[in-house]
Amino acid sequence: MLAEIITIGDEILIGQIVDTNSAWMAEKLNQAGIRVKQISSVSDDRLHILKALEEAASRAEIILITGGLGPTKDDITKKTLAEYFNVGMVQNEAALQNVQQIFAKYNRPLLDVNRKQAEVPANCEVILNKNGTAPGMWFNHNGKIYVSMPGVPFEMKYMVEEEVMPKLKDTFKLPFIIHKTILTAGEGESFLAEKIADIEDALPPNIKLAYLPKLGQVRLRLSADGDDEVQLRAEIEDYAARIIERVKYAVVADEDVALEKAILNLMTKRRLTLSTAESCTGGYISHLITQHSGSSAVFLGGVVSYSNMAKENTLGVNSETIRQYGAVSEQTVKEMAAGSLTAFKSDYSVAVTGIAGPDGGTDDKPVGTVWIAVSNGAKTSAKKFTFGNKRIQNIERSATAAFSMLNTLLHEIEE
Amino acid sequence: MLAEIITIGDEILIGQIVDTNSAWMAEKLNQAGIRVKQISSVSDDRLHILKALEEAASRAEIILITGGLGPTKDDITKKTLAEYFNVGMVQNEAALQNVQQIFAKYNRPLLDVNRKQAEVPANCEVILNKNGTAPGMWFNHNGKIYVSMPGVPFEMKYMVEEEVMPKLKDTFKLPFIIHKTILTAGEGESFLAEKIADIEDALPPNIKLAYLPKLGQVRLRLSADGDDEVQLRAEIEDYAARIIERVKYAVVADEDVALEKAILNLMTKRRLTLSTAESCTGGYISHLITQHSGSSAVFLGGVVSYSNMAKENTLGVNSETIRQYGAVSEQTVKEMAAGSLTAFKSDYSVAVTGIAGPDGGTDDKPVGTVWIAVSNGAKTSAKKFTFGNKRIQNIERSATAAFSMLNTLLHEIEE
Repeated sequence: MLAEIITIGDEILIGQIVDTNSAWMAEKLNQAGIRVKQISSVSDDRLHILKALEEAASRAEIILITGGLGPTKDDITKKTLAEYFNVGMVQNEAALQNVQQIFAKYNRPLLDVNRKQAEVPANCEVILNKNGTAPGMWFNHNGKIYVSMPGVPFEMKYMVEEEVMPKLKDTFKLPFIIHKTILTAGEGESFLAEKIADIEDALPPNIKLAYLPKLGQVRLRLSADGDDEVQLRAEIEDYAARIIERVKYAVVADEDVALEKAILNLMTKRRLTLSTAESCTGGYISHLITQHSGSSAVFLGGVVSYSNMAKENTLGVNSETIRQYGAVSEQTVKEMAAGSLTAFKSDYSVAVTGIAGPDGGTDDKPVGTVWIAVSNGAKTSAKKFTFGNKRIQNIERSATAAFSMLNTLLHEIEE
Repeated sequence: MLAEIITIGDEILIGQIVDTNSAWMAEKLNQAGIRVKQISSVSDDRLHILKALEEAASRAEIILITGGLGPTKDDITKKTLAEYFNVGMVQNEAALQNVQQIFAKYNRPLLDVNRKQAEVPANCEVILNKNGTAPGMWFNHNGKIYVSMPGVPFEMKYMVEEEVMPKLKDTFKLPFIIHKTILTAGEGESFLAEKIADIEDALPPNIKLAYLPKLGQVRLRLSADGDDEVQLRAEIEDYAARIIERVKYAVVADEDVALEKAILNLMTKRRLTLSTAESCTGGYISHLITQHSGSSAVFLGGVVSYSNMAKENTLGVNSETIRQYGAVSEQTVKEMAAGSLTAFKSDYSVAVTGIAGPDGGTDDKPVGTVWIAVSNGAKTSAKKFTFGNKRIQNIERSATAAFSMLNTLLHEIEE
């Protein structure tokens, strides 16, 4: 079963927004055994939308469309769909009620443009939008399914989870596609590939291996398709086990999970707590941790000590240490890690201090110089990194390196 | 001048990674007056790549391709390009030297798969990769330009900035496209549209207005194309001024800038400092601030007080306040804001406490209940929000609301 995703809107094509919707939808489709053949972003342009619909329908049975459903004049998806299906527009009562209720709830006057949001192509089945005024639309046209949804992520996500996926499962009898991901850190893609070359060569034709590198991490993804779910799972687990055995020193998790989530899972299991002391990462590490639900069982808190005074007042770093060795130094980062353990009474702490750039570098300590320490009180490891000259990357790489160091320290002590 | 972007790789189509490269490239192209007609993500599949190249070339003069250049077996972009152009593969000496240097620098053995990275289609001009082993490739084929680059963002970005854009400007004589964005907060898309309907209707055909809504914010983007840059700038500034005058109470900035960056700019100009006290946002607010270079002139630091103890120890929140009113309350958030001012000796502070979910809600305070306070010592505003039941959204909406409140407080005192 093949699907295509079409996102409509000039804002993607001029790069003003990143298309996160497509990845999210693709993941949901894949989990249901639907392969995404192509993702296309096209402009708010009638002919271009029509062409994209035709092309997608020539390749796939399911076409998910997002965007271009707003009340304003640049949004033309709905009338273009009506033209594509050669039908007129009708007012949908349920959609109109939904719009009216939303405006009543917020005590806003209902404008004509808002009322028009309840108009839909005559051949569609309306998917109610619980989070906004633009209705979703489900079309079954010559056996192919077209679904048009708003581009606002949380409106679209709700529709996909609650309405679209269940309807697709009802409509089609779906094959199984299974993915198994192994998260590694600290080794390069080609090194890993060389290590497991014989396992990869021996994979049967229905199982594929992909390498997904990302700053300091490589994900190894096995994908299997077939009809017998139980057998597929057994096969893919067997190959995953062989790979893990071969490169186990680099393995962080045997599932597709964020690095920090793998650490949270481990610390939750061991009932350990964590705190952070961040300078150049500016709260990014604590944000990565706290985006995960359940993180409060492990994470007690952190300090973003952006100024020297903050390092002294909130973390108890000795002003003399900063004066003598500098804010970016082994001595300072170790005192930050110790201060974090004390301030939050946590079992473990992570501390980062560095020069994210683009300003602040010196000959001695150029932009990209970062000191990271991890500590459990009994043992403190500190390490200097020399990243590049791009601020955002330095922040991201520092966070990845900090989590890798914490993972290593946690694995030094087996349960 | 039209361009298309093709990203190659199953990882995008199964939703494992979000395609951020395309938005970034689209923005760079637009700034140079090149419109992006379509962005397509296709799989690591020979026939599909060939078809995508053909389709893109039928619509555009410039085709930027990323991904599928790794050393592993699933990466087939290079040989597929050679097939598309009907040429053989040759070893490129400069690319080989680059690979050798990188491996020597990291003291890694050079494997055969790495050496193969220096092989390129015979008709290409190599773009050296200063940040990795896969060379970029520039093809001028029947007057159309094809550029193939690695999918790793920082490798691609360096090539685009340093090599691809300058070469494109040399190759083509480009028209001007100018964008002007107005950032608004606190008003809905349709409300703004109604307010400025007459201005929008009077726009000349070469100027378009788009509405880009994002949780709590709407960007109004004017786009003008033509040949006379000076005249275009004057025209677009004139229309922008009319729009700003009409909806000025909702305008945060008259440029395409992040909400927090607009605030940083204002605070830098006024030489004001800021600190944060975050509970449910978990460091996201300080991360948003510190991702911007120059933020250290304004931002002194923050506390992520994820546990009650952290609220008491690091922010001086009274334990009695938490006991009596709860951690998520007007009283607690105000004490957090005050404690942050004291701990960091900042002019302004932002404090957030809430229930991000999915756990921790009660009948009284359901998931999505968030209290936010902003303070400058003399004045403290606190406000309760009731967001939804999605954790990440609650974190993002809380941050947007906090910045909006800070923006309002800053604008109450005119310079």
